[in-house]
Amino acid sequence: MPLLPDHLIAGYRNFITGRYVSESDHYRSLAREGQAPETMIIACCDSRTAPETVFDAGPGELFVLRNVANLIPPYEPDGEYHSTSAALEFAVQSLKVKNIVVMGHGRCGGIKAALSHNSAVPLSPGDFIGKWMSLISPAADTVAASTMMTTGERATALERISIRYSIANLRTFPCIKILEDKGKLALHGAWFDVSTGELWAMNKATGDFERPEIG
Amino acid sequence: MPLLPDHLIAGYRNFITGRYVSESDHYRSLAREGQAPETMIIACCDSRTAPETVFDAGPGELFVLRNVANLIPPYEPDGEYHSTSAALEFAVQSLKVKNIVVMGHGRCGGIKAALSHNSAVPLSPGDFIGKWMSLISPAADTVAASTMMTTGERATALERISIRYSIANLRTFPCIKILEDKGKLALHGAWFDVSTGELWAMNKATGDFERPEIG
Amino acid sequence: MPLLPDHLIAGYRNFITGRYVSESDHYRSLAREGQAPETMIIACCDSRTAPETVFDAGPGELFVLRNVANLIPPYEPDGEYHSTSAALEFAVQSLKVKNIVVMGHGRCGGIKAALSHNSAVPLSPGDFIGKWMSLISPAADTVAASTMMTTGERATALERISIRYSIANLRTFPCIKILEDKGKLALHGAWFDVSTGELWAMNKATGDFERPEIG
Amino acid sequence: MPLLPDHLIAGYRNFITGRYVSESDHYRSLAREGQAPETMIIACCDSRTAPETVFDAGPGELFVLRNVANLIPPYEPDGEYHSTSAALEFAVQSLKVKNIVVMGHGRCGGIKAALSHNSAVPLSPGDFIGKWMSLISPAADTVAASTMMTTGERATALERISIRYSIANLRTFPCIKILEDKGKLALHGAWFDVSTGELWAMNKATGDFERPEIG
Repeated sequence: MPLLPDHLIAGYRNFITGRYVSESDHYRSLAREGQAPETMIIACCDSRTAPETVFDAGPGELFVLRNVANLIPPYEPDGEYHSTSAALEFAVQSLKVKNIVVMGHGRCGGIKAALSHNSAVPLSPGDFIGKWMSLISPAADTVAASTMMTTGERATALERISIRYSIANLRTFPCIKILEDKGKLALHGAWFDVSTGELWAMNKATGDFERPEIG
Repeated sequence: MPLLPDHLIAGYRNFITGRYVSESDHYRSLAREGQAPETMIIACCDSRTAPETVFDAGPGELFVLRNVANLIPPYEPDGEYHSTSAALEFAVQSLKVKNIVVMGHGRCGGIKAALSHNSAVPLSPGDFIGKWMSLISPAADTVAASTMMTTGERATALERISIRYSIANLRTFPCIKILEDKGKLALHGAWFDVSTGELWAMNKATGDFERPEIG
Repeated sequence: MPLLPDHLIAGYRNFITGRYVSESDHYRSLAREGQAPETMIIACCDSRTAPETVFDAGPGELFVLRNVANLIPPYEPDGEYHSTSAALEFAVQSLKVKNIVVMGHGRCGGIKAALSHNSAVPLSPGDFIGKWMSLISPAADTVAASTMMTTGERATALERISIRYSIANLRTFPCIKILEDKGKLALHGAWFDVSTGELWAMNKATGDFERPEIG
Repeated sequence: MPLLPDHLIAGYRNFITGRYVSESDHYRSLAREGQAPETMIIACCDSRTAPETVFDAGPGELFVLRNVANLIPPYEPDGEYHSTSAALEFAVQSLKVKNIVVMGHGRCGGIKAALSHNSAVPLSPGDFIGKWMSLISPAADTVAASTMMTTGERATALERISIRYSIANLRTFPCIKILEDKGKLALHGAWFDVSTGELWAMNKATGDFERPEIG
């Protein structure tokens, strides 16, 4: 059995003989000095929405947590093994990032699962997706009941609701709330349309998503 | 306040006027047909180790979970809010990926925290990093006691131990075990050296890390 | 019985009709003037790691001590028959070398013996390997207890620890310490990977091994 | 300070871009299968007499102990830290070599020191060379008293005496004696003339040194 799948070996060859060659000084410096990203992104695992691709980001630029449907559970100081809370703590307290962006996207499989969870068969006996997406089940149920909206509209609606929900949960972390209030940390929402490549950003005053000026 | 940090707007402008232009058909097709990645990667949040960069991966190629120190907790069917388990379930049962790669890296902040957890002050009252990294605390304690090794050697040792640990935990998920035994799913380990850009892959027979032939 | 094994006769024939022909002036000069090597190398007896081969060294270039696992016992002015101390004294006081390099290597049989000494049967009643390798038994025991590391990782770890140990012991020789402090003698560590041919050199600040730029 | 002296880096570059390229399969095989040299050589540290050079030996061919003046102390089962005994034990018991060659050479600094030890000032307070060469001091005193021989003749005489002395000491090791008696291990003596490149081998019947037929 090969050490790694062929497509990864081929891709790594491109990297090490291409991009790495021109950025080797930067990599060495990042190794020596440590990372100092200004921005943390919480994105979905989806293979079509890598933040580094959508934001054309270089090494050292983005600290990235990715889980199904880019969810942030609420602050739970007594919980165990919270991978999301651990990543937030590290980003805010250790790296002192200035921005946190929750980035959702269209045609999200996790959101689709949340919208159908009352009728769907669990993917496995553990029903991990079901439990994970249950974080937004009250919203999902409401949206699912909006039968006058199309399937696509319901998905987009819940995708954006879940971004606002995760941003609200970010504010349940005391250190995030304090830093945001002091103006040292900014929370953002973004939504990426896989089909058109469009990026929509959340208006913090209204919660609406709109397309930013890109100059 | 701007909708998004300037560097993200600038990066997105590069994407939408560059890469997206040449790949728009592919994006449209991925939106229409859905994603079908062959490979899931579990990687660290670290800003220097995006799998899409290291493997020069295009949209639709990699389903990516990222958490601090690329850890997989063991299978716990009664647990709640397991973001890692949810992502695994989705990748294996819904997307039917053929490969899962646990990808660690050098100079990992989470590993460093694990090695110093007995002496370090928690980053916040919740000590989320401490709890999350406690998944590997038995190994961390053993390695931390190897005082004849340098700080760097201890970190590399634990980084690689944690990859093997996570791969072992992957096999505690019944569906992963079954599919691997049937030869339908391959589990891999990889370790990326931020400084040199070198990729090391785990030899499945020995657990040792070696550099793959890249042709 | 032949005077010498056939393969040595054949090899010597290659030497005397090949290399020696083009280097005879140099050999004559080295005989007339005496040797004046700048560098002493302490290497292992292992047949795969001759320093003259790895460093493509010509006659007169390297003063070479080779013992099992390239160990330097500590300075012991009252000891007897110290072959290592004698070689060091000759190199430093008589030849006035400028560099001493302790060169270890991967898959070292002596290191392997040290890691298993608690369980292994001595090779002979004298247990000379056991006694010799007991120089590093405290480190060996610690590394052997690191059961989460693979067999290969433990060997590499101890190979590198033993290089640092020998370098530390070099500094227990007063004349070496004094000359190093005066900047007249440099101590180095190197580790050769038999499989890949890679040479790793010790970073004097950290003790870590890294691959030198070879231009 | 550089990781390694420049001349070693330059030499290694020659090796890895030259010889290693054509022998990489052999190196990999030697790493995978382990070493299996047929011959052990006990040689001097002298920079002009590397056995791999004089015998044009490839990787894996010669297991090589090198100390000052290629001496073998007698078997001493209660001794400590005997680097020579450890190397012999490893070669004979673990590698099961078929030949042991004690290889001396002309213009040996250790022999010269032995010949003048009654008049010379120790190189350092530990007088390690003095102690080490005292292994052959009875012979050295006799030869030094042969004032009708020239300085060069006295040196050559003691160089050859010491080879015979070391071979005799080899036979004090029970396992070597037994294997030699069984015809499974052959002991040889050789003497290399740095100036002319000539190799002389010991006639086992007479102890005389003569030049072997090299075909």
